[in-house]
Amino acid sequence: MKIKEIGGEFALIRRLSEIVPGARPEVIQGIGDDAAVLRVAPEPAPYLLVTTDILVEAQHFNRAWASPEQIGIKAAECNVSDIAAMGGTPRWMFVSLVLPADTEVAWAEGLYRGLGQSCRRHHIAILGGDTTQGALVTVNITLLGSVPPDQLRLRSHARPGDALLVTGCLGASAAALALLSQGQTPSTYLREKHLAPTCRLDVAGRIASLAHAMIDISDGLGSEVGHICKASHVGAEIRASAIPLHDEVRAAGRLLGVDPLHWAIGGGEDFELLFSMPPENVSRLKAGGVTCYEVGRVTDRPGDVVLVSDDGAVSTLGGGYNHFQ
Amino acid sequence: MKIKEIGGEFALIRRLSEIVPGARPEVIQGIGDDAAVLRVAPEPAPYLLVTTDILVEAQHFNRAWASPEQIGIKAAECNVSDIAAMGGTPRWMFVSLVLPADTEVAWAEGLYRGLGQSCRRHHIAILGGDTTQGALVTVNITLLGSVPPDQLRLRSHARPGDALLVTGCLGASAAALALLSQGQTPSTYLREKHLAPTCRLDVAGRIASLAHAMIDISDGLGSEVGHICKASHVGAEIRASAIPLHDEVRAAGRLLGVDPLHWAIGGGEDFELLFSMPPENVSRLKAGGVTCYEVGRVTDRPGDVVLVSDDGAVSTLGGGYNHFQ
Repeated sequence: MKIKEIGGEFALIRRLSEIVPGARPEVIQGIGDDAAVLRVAPEPAPYLLVTTDILVEAQHFNRAWASPEQIGIKAAECNVSDIAAMGGTPRWMFVSLVLPADTEVAWAEGLYRGLGQSCRRHHIAILGGDTTQGALVTVNITLLGSVPPDQLRLRSHARPGDALLVTGCLGASAAALALLSQGQTPSTYLREKHLAPTCRLDVAGRIASLAHAMIDISDGLGSEVGHICKASHVGAEIRASAIPLHDEVRAAGRLLGVDPLHWAIGGGEDFELLFSMPPENVSRLKAGGVTCYEVGRVTDRPGDVVLVSDDGAVSTLGGGYNHFQ
Repeated sequence: MKIKEIGGEFALIRRLSEIVPGARPEVIQGIGDDAAVLRVAPEPAPYLLVTTDILVEAQHFNRAWASPEQIGIKAAECNVSDIAAMGGTPRWMFVSLVLPADTEVAWAEGLYRGLGQSCRRHHIAILGGDTTQGALVTVNITLLGSVPPDQLRLRSHARPGDALLVTGCLGASAAALALLSQGQTPSTYLREKHLAPTCRLDVAGRIASLAHAMIDISDGLGSEVGHICKASHVGAEIRASAIPLHDEVRAAGRLLGVDPLHWAIGGGEDFELLFSMPPENVSRLKAGGVTCYEVGRVTDRPGDVVLVSDDGAVSTLGGGYNHFQ
């Protein structure tokens, strides 16, 4: 049986995670959130956070479109985004790099300059890794961070009645990819969002102190709302008209004849944050200087994750990107 | 300029590590040992150890020769070996997996059964990872462990006068690979050493309490002696006749017309331990039930790393496996 026949990436992860040992007393959160959470010293010492992401040439980036610096930035930011989504602070990075035999030293150095740029921005040290030869450029990053126990935010803590919010416009990365794939030239804004995104560590801490659940948007709003609802045993209603879209994403939609909501809901790689919080906290968050957009609310109907369009029509909120599907 | 023109893998790592931020007060050891060492809680709390290794199809394993279970075992053991070489205990594993689109679910499950077998053997929990699609099977493992500060053993702590020892016979993995590459069938012993090795966590703790420097043999004895000497600013004399070779490695050498010392010194993937200790500790170690072989001694001549053959001839000890060279 092929992976797509069992439902793709997430079904595979479920099956594989049942094969291997996972439970231990010091494990606060194992497989199933943006990062694992470990108690490495008695509380109130911070928990250790661990996340890992692998980027493969042709699948996650295209060397014809992206400079090595941009690939380095993207590889770093998508991991920092996972630590941010836990309410944590990124600290130590480990980089495994597969390079074809004829790679120019300058190209490898460019990738590291990109990694270094993100790491300096977020005060992260690179402390090790592995470098080897292979046919396709592959970058695996493992990022460790820390979070005080009372700042930890999990996918599983959303509560019925919570407002659901995002930190910024969605769909830009997917719109840029669609344009590039069709030989068009995206605007500087769209290109930057796709090739060298910046995650939202800048606001994650302030959000964490007021939020219940938090997740980063790496596979599209639809997938991430679904993850929160599943982990929290709740439902959600998202209002289509409330999903923030940048003018240039709308313009790209008109150019390619695509509903830009398709990119926002199913596209992925926006690296904005999605979070739930009591409605009364939203004004406090905004008063603290955090720009955010209320896109819907959490309901007490587990499994019922819906999109309400402008005319009141209700449909199932589509999923996001799923490898192998 | 290509990577091989600057000297391959180790030269590249040196250049890349200069680009990115690395120093921080909590970093006991960054790039340059088998694992990074971090102070995550005030001493005498254990240090955190972090190691990562990436295995790529066609480069590190061959699906025609190795079952998915064996690939899983090898991927786990080579990381556990790095933690063992620091004197530490492995604890938490993170697995990034790249699989071609048409991969059978059963194959992926086999790989996880192999990982699970090693993890159960060493009491490791698998707590996360990333699964994605790509043309070549690629497995990146990040393994976290811990070590009490007084049990930590670094490459840099060898001292002139130390005995140099290894925990077992060398060259079996390289001999098996040579046989397989030429269409021959290795014996069960050789095949197992290459396809599903077992690292030496079983004795690492007992060695650590008596040793100065320790490293695991992943790139061949020559390379690892060189790493210890460079990090410790010492030299070494290895006696060719003292390098332990299994009878089946000698037999493979006769069959293929290869000096088996070539595999032991330059072959790699033995995952035995190489360590230095005061000569008076060797008998104590053996009395404690640890089988080991004294292969030479540490000298006070930095950069002078030599092999002394049976007839007294002295030659430079050749290096081990170096990607991109």
